[in-house]
Amino acid sequence: MAPPAPPVSAARSLPRLAPAAAVRSSAIRDLLALTAQPGILSLAGGMPALDAVHDDVLPSVAAEVLADAGAVQYGPTEGWPALRTWIAGVVDRAAGAAPPADPDDVLVTHGSQQALDLVVRALVEPGTAVVVERPTYLGAVQALTAARADVHAVAVDDDGIDTERLAADLRAGLRPALCYLAPTFQNPSGVVMSAGRRAHLGALADRYGFVVVDDDPYRDLAFGPVPSRLRADVPDDLAVTLGTFSKVVAPGLRVGWAHGPRWLVGALTRLKQAADLHTSTVAQQVLAAAVARPGWWEARAARLAGLYRRRAGVLAAAVADHGRGRIEAAAARGGMFLWGRLTDGTDGAALLPAALRRGVAFVPGAEFSCDGAAGPHLRLCFATLDDAALVEAARRLGAALGDERTG
Amino acid sequence: MAPPAPPVSAARSLPRLAPAAAVRSSAIRDLLALTAQPGILSLAGGMPALDAVHDDVLPSVAAEVLADAGAVQYGPTEGWPALRTWIAGVVDRAAGAAPPADPDDVLVTHGSQQALDLVVRALVEPGTAVVVERPTYLGAVQALTAARADVHAVAVDDDGIDTERLAADLRAGLRPALCYLAPTFQNPSGVVMSAGRRAHLGALADRYGFVVVDDDPYRDLAFGPVPSRLRADVPDDLAVTLGTFSKVVAPGLRVGWAHGPRWLVGALTRLKQAADLHTSTVAQQVLAAAVARPGWWEARAARLAGLYRRRAGVLAAAVADHGRGRIEAAAARGGMFLWGRLTDGTDGAALLPAALRRGVAFVPGAEFSCDGAAGPHLRLCFATLDDAALVEAARRLGAALGDERTG
Repeated sequence: MAPPAPPVSAARSLPRLAPAAAVRSSAIRDLLALTAQPGILSLAGGMPALDAVHDDVLPSVAAEVLADAGAVQYGPTEGWPALRTWIAGVVDRAAGAAPPADPDDVLVTHGSQQALDLVVRALVEPGTAVVVERPTYLGAVQALTAARADVHAVAVDDDGIDTERLAADLRAGLRPALCYLAPTFQNPSGVVMSAGRRAHLGALADRYGFVVVDDDPYRDLAFGPVPSRLRADVPDDLAVTLGTFSKVVAPGLRVGWAHGPRWLVGALTRLKQAADLHTSTVAQQVLAAAVARPGWWEARAARLAGLYRRRAGVLAAAVADHGRGRIEAAAARGGMFLWGRLTDGTDGAALLPAALRRGVAFVPGAEFSCDGAAGPHLRLCFATLDDAALVEAARRLGAALGDERTG
Repeated sequence: MAPPAPPVSAARSLPRLAPAAAVRSSAIRDLLALTAQPGILSLAGGMPALDAVHDDVLPSVAAEVLADAGAVQYGPTEGWPALRTWIAGVVDRAAGAAPPADPDDVLVTHGSQQALDLVVRALVEPGTAVVVERPTYLGAVQALTAARADVHAVAVDDDGIDTERLAADLRAGLRPALCYLAPTFQNPSGVVMSAGRRAHLGALADRYGFVVVDDDPYRDLAFGPVPSRLRADVPDDLAVTLGTFSKVVAPGLRVGWAHGPRWLVGALTRLKQAADLHTSTVAQQVLAAAVARPGWWEARAARLAGLYRRRAGVLAAAVADHGRGRIEAAAARGGMFLWGRLTDGTDGAALLPAALRRGVAFVPGAEFSCDGAAGPHLRLCFATLDDAALVEAARRLGAALGDERTG
C-alpha cells in the first residue's frame, strides 16, 4: 500500500536551490561591468593585449578548418588528437626532472577554469579539505565554494606559499585531498615560488598523499628565467598541471587543458562528458592549425612578454611617482599584474569609490581572499592599457589617495 | 595546543575520488569508438548530416569575426547579447500561450548538455528526487549520476510520459525538484508528448512545485506540425527550455542555451562562471552573424528535415523488408532516430555482437534506462547514412537476426 501523501500547500513554493548555487558572482566581473563606462581607465580587468599581436593566422586557419563540412561534427571527449600531442610537448618544455608527458594524459577543456572545476568535482565532497594560497585566484574560490570544500588558506610571501606553515598544519591533522597553487607569477600577487619551497611542497604531497594542482597560465609571459613546473617536484601520481590558450592566443576560444595521472584524468574525462560532452572541435582544430605554423606561438608569446615587461615597468614607476609614498609594489617578474600595498594599512576596498570618481579602477585585495577579509592590497593590471594610459591611471590613483586623506 | 597528529602511512595512498566521479562513460561514445572501424555501417551515432547543408557561410563569417582583434577577448558569462536576443526569438516561435521570452532570461552554454548539467547542479543535492522518462537521454543520466540524484523513471508510451503514473507517484509522496523531459521527438523513442499529457504535466508542476525542463533539440527537424513548447503549459516560474545549435548548424561549436525563470537562470549563471567563465565568444559571434543572414537558419533546418524525413522512411521500409518480421518501429515524426523493438522480446544488447560481426552497429535500448536493465529495443539513427547505406545496414541487421536464431 502506498504511504499517505504528504500535504501539498495551496500556495506552492519554488524548489530550493542546492547549496552549490550559493556560489558568489565574481566581484571582478561585476566590477568590469561597472568600469566599462567611458572615461574609466581600468587596471581592474585581465584582458591580454591581443591587439598587439593580431595577424591573419586565426581568420585564415578558421576559414580553412570550416571549409570542411566534417570539421563541425561531434568529437572525442578527451580532445582533438593533434592538439593533445602539442600540449604534451608544452608540458614537457618545463618538465625539469619529470618524465615525458603522454598525450593520453591530457584532457582538453573549455578554458583552464573548467579544468580546475573538473578537478574539484572529481576530488571534493562537501567538507573535503583543500589548501589554497592566500591570496588566491578568485575562480578557484568559486569552484571550491560550489563544491562546498573546506578551504584552508596558507599565506604567500615573497617565496610563494609558506610550506613550513603548511607542514605544521599537516602535522596538526590537516588532511587535504588537494592543494591548489599558482606558483609562477601568481594571480594576484605576481610571486614566483622558490625552488626550496617547491621541493618542500613535493615532499609534503608525497608524505601526506594530496594532489597538487599547478595552475600555470602565465609561464609564457616571463620577463626572465622561469622555474620548472611543479610536476618536477611532485610525485607523478599526484601532479596536475593546468594550462590555457587564453593568455597568448584567445580567451574567447575558451580552450585550456589539464595534464595529470591517469587515475585522475580518467575521472575528469567522465565528468567532462557529463558536463558538456567535449571541448569545441572547431576551436581545437583552429588552434592546432595555428600552433603548427613554425614559430607562431613562440613569437606571439615573446612579443606579449616584451610588451608586458615594459608596461609593468611604466606602471611601477608611475605608481612610485604619483602614489604619495603610500603604495608599494614589488617589481613584476612576469604575468599581467602588479600587487600594490597601501603602506599605511588602508583597506583597498575603501579606496575604490574615490578611485572610480577619479576615473580609475583596480581590484581590492579582499577579492582574492576566501573570506573577503579587508586588506591593504590592490591588484593593478598592466597588460591592457598603453604607456600613456598607465601613467594617467597612476596619476588618478594618486589623486584618489589625496581625496581620501582630505575627504 | 594542536591536536595530536593522525598517523601517516609510510606507503601513502591516493586521495579518494568523490562520489560524483562514479559517473559512467557513455556506452554510446565507447561504442562509437568501436564502430569507427572501416566496414561498419553505423546506425549507432547521432551525427547530423551537415555535409548536405554545407555552404560558405561559416568559413566566411568566422574569417570576418576573427579579423577583429577584439573578437577573441573574454566576454559576459550570460552570453553574447545579439545571440541571446536571437535565441529569445526562437523561444517565442513555439510559445503557445506563454509570455514573450526576455533575452535577459537566456543563458548561452557550451551545448545544451552544459545547460542541463548546470540546472542539475543548481537544483540537485545528493538524494534529491528527479523525474525522468523511461527511456531517457543518456547525457541526462550522466549529469544526474554525477550529482547523485535519486532518479525516478516514469514510462513513456505513444503519448509521451505517463502523467497518470506520475500523478499517482506524487500523491504517494514523491517530491521531485525537477522533471527532465524531451517531449518532442524524444531521444531515443522519437515520441511526441500529447497535448493532454502536456496540460496534465503543467498542472502537476503547478500543484507540487517542481521545475520542468523541456529539452528540445529536434524541434527544427519536424516532418509535420509540432506542438508548442512545454512552457505553454507549465507555470512561468517553473518552466525551463533547453536548445542547441548542434543539430542544425554545428555540434563542434558547442553552443546551446537555457531559457527559464530569473530565480533559476541567475543561479545557473553563477555556476557557469565557476564552471568555465563563459561560452566561447568566437563561436557565439560566428553563430550570431550566420543566423543574421535572412533565411539561412530556416533553409538549413528545412533541408535537413526533408532529408531526414526521406531517410526515416527508407530505413523503416528496409527494416520491414529485411527484419524477418522480428523488428517493429513506429514511423518517425521528426528528429534523427527510429526506436525499433524486437517483437519476440530478445534483448537488444544480446543482438549487438552478431550485428557487429555482420558490419552494422546500433545502440541497445538498455543504454537509455537509468539502471541499464535489458530490453528489446534498438535505437537506429537514420540521419547520417545515405539511402543505399541505410538499406544495406537493414539487410545486415536482418542477417544478424538470422545468425542469432541459428547460432
